[in-house]
Amino acid sequence: MDIFDQIEKPTLLLDEATARANLSRMVAKLRALGVRFRPHFKTHQSISIGEWFRQAGVEHITVSSLDMARYFAGAGWQDISLAFPANLRQAGALGELARQVRLHLLVESPETVHFLGQRLEAPVELWIKIDVGNHRTGVGVDDPAAVAAVCRAAASFPHLHLRGLLTHAGQTYRAHSPEEICRVYQASVEALNRLRRQLATDGIGPLEISVGDTPACSACTDLGAVDEARPGNFIFYDAQQLQTGACTAADIAVALACPVVARHPERGEVVVYGGAIHLSKDYWVEDGEKKYGLVALPAGKRWGEPLPGAYVSGLSQEHGILRLPAEALARVAVGDLLCLLPAHSCLSVQVMGSYLTLDGLAISTLNCPGRDAAA
Amino acid sequence: MDIFDQIEKPTLLLDEATARANLSRMVAKLRALGVRFRPHFKTHQSISIGEWFRQAGVEHITVSSLDMARYFAGAGWQDISLAFPANLRQAGALGELARQVRLHLLVESPETVHFLGQRLEAPVELWIKIDVGNHRTGVGVDDPAAVAAVCRAAASFPHLHLRGLLTHAGQTYRAHSPEEICRVYQASVEALNRLRRQLATDGIGPLEISVGDTPACSACTDLGAVDEARPGNFIFYDAQQLQTGACTAADIAVALACPVVARHPERGEVVVYGGAIHLSKDYWVEDGEKKYGLVALPAGKRWGEPLPGAYVSGLSQEHGILRLPAEALARVAVGDLLCLLPAHSCLSVQVMGSYLTLDGLAISTLNCPGRDAAA
Repeated sequence: MDIFDQIEKPTLLLDEATARANLSRMVAKLRALGVRFRPHFKTHQSISIGEWFRQAGVEHITVSSLDMARYFAGAGWQDISLAFPANLRQAGALGELARQVRLHLLVESPETVHFLGQRLEAPVELWIKIDVGNHRTGVGVDDPAAVAAVCRAAASFPHLHLRGLLTHAGQTYRAHSPEEICRVYQASVEALNRLRRQLATDGIGPLEISVGDTPACSACTDLGAVDEARPGNFIFYDAQQLQTGACTAADIAVALACPVVARHPERGEVVVYGGAIHLSKDYWVEDGEKKYGLVALPAGKRWGEPLPGAYVSGLSQEHGILRLPAEALARVAVGDLLCLLPAHSCLSVQVMGSYLTLDGLAISTLNCPGRDAAA
Repeated sequence: MDIFDQIEKPTLLLDEATARANLSRMVAKLRALGVRFRPHFKTHQSISIGEWFRQAGVEHITVSSLDMARYFAGAGWQDISLAFPANLRQAGALGELARQVRLHLLVESPETVHFLGQRLEAPVELWIKIDVGNHRTGVGVDDPAAVAAVCRAAASFPHLHLRGLLTHAGQTYRAHSPEEICRVYQASVEALNRLRRQLATDGIGPLEISVGDTPACSACTDLGAVDEARPGNFIFYDAQQLQTGACTAADIAVALACPVVARHPERGEVVVYGGAIHLSKDYWVEDGEKKYGLVALPAGKRWGEPLPGAYVSGLSQEHGILRLPAEALARVAVGDLLCLLPAHSCLSVQVMGSYLTLDGLAISTLNCPGRDAAA
């Protein structure tokens, strides 16, 4: 009897051994490089999976919301970086949490620093968000005057401890090879160090540098002159990471098992019960096509290699439309299961809310703390 | 004190009065046309909102999963259509539910009919999924032989009652005007009636016709020769429906209230706490741009009209990137709230899992039955 026999509806399968191996590799790599490991827990969002990290010696974590910070603080995590621009409307609650754990907050303007300095009483660690080319949030890495203004605002509040510069080179996710990832990453590290030196000549510092992303942490042998790294996605990887060259298919540790509900060989398509509310609607573009995931067959204790030429071509709320080559399609029947490797594992975990391990154990998450994956 | 003062994080606001008005209009319209109203509950997924429908005289409902069917059966709904291709792996559970309520299932192949006929003991109503041009699932409307084969398979099982032909003209969602919606819809109704007549000449029938979509049910004055309509999205509408011409902005009954966390006037952008995990990643394309939602200001008891030229241009897991015209941007500060009108309200409801009404009441859903929207 294997795990697949008990599955009747879309189920997020978790290969614990593969995930733990991904974790061990990253722990060892960052330890060898002398870089503090502050993994992002927004990918797995699970207290149980957090324990794997604790067993691996991790003491510092990153989260992306106050709810997530509280959830993991409740599980005993004491040093938490909320790596999202500080939400002033939650200042009261942030202040409460700052009494319970060492809390790190992210700022990018003197106004925000002033607001926090006046509202918060407990000490917090402050990091300045630097934009190194992703153009999402942050002060431009080439704008030392603006960064200095934020630093000086922090200096006027003794309980706000300025720790350093924090960035997320999200543009590495759009790379197509390990070489491209590392070129983008190294350029960002050089720019950050230039900025750090300029601030030092103005008497500001010492400042740490904290970097973000899974592609660089996976693909680059040397992370350069940085103090901390916050990768999150590496614990599971996904099809988008496979596209960047940051991982192999064998490293992908989650897959969505979906019942086949219709076959359309005349269109080269199969329809599964597994749609946007199970995978999310994130996708990558390849050969001019939008792809929401890859497709694998159940294979004993795990799922197999991605079927060549097969992918998730469309999603409705519950329908997944799969493009399958004729030979693979011929072997699939209504009532079978297919395993979808998601475009973006972080979002699939969020929408599913829970996992079923390959050993049949249910793991819940922040999103639905009591929901049984197998129900 | 208004509802906005208590909001500290992304919150899905529900304008109950507008939603109930949308419901009343649809009830009256279908009653006047003599078409059975079988609303799709996958949009709101709430027992409480279901009560509004019951108060409006609705007795028949549509759902898109077994879990959803059980959820509403538990709230007393007795006539439920599971309008998703029958999932054979859940045959046992489907059979159990069929003992409790009048259950309608969707089929598209003789093999599925045979499987259900042999596995189920309780009577079920069967509908054949017909593809009228959306090319997602279903037997082609121009393939009477294939449809007849499914009908004959059903005839060999006395407890499988063949009710009719069911379709979803999803291609109306890509229309750009009420006239285009109705052209597409009328063509599909003519094709379905042609099919029904052909089957009748083969001695198959009588068969009902059940149609799907909110754009047609909203925009067309006459639904033609059909027996049942299953619109769902109309209860809230959304930005995509606005694009098709199926509704006005004033009909949109849900909006995601999001704290502003960063301003980037140099890019004409504002960043909010409200990302893919709050809105979903569904979008429409307008002027060559991907748009994930429209933007409105809090306005007393509700939100205002969409700000001209403003839209959600990008989403990360928690970040929402908003493009705002300079004049609107100048009036927005970090710590303010902005209201996002989602691209696709069904998916936003799914990812948020609960609502806060404009009167401050919390409404939960199937996705998270106990979660308090205001927590």
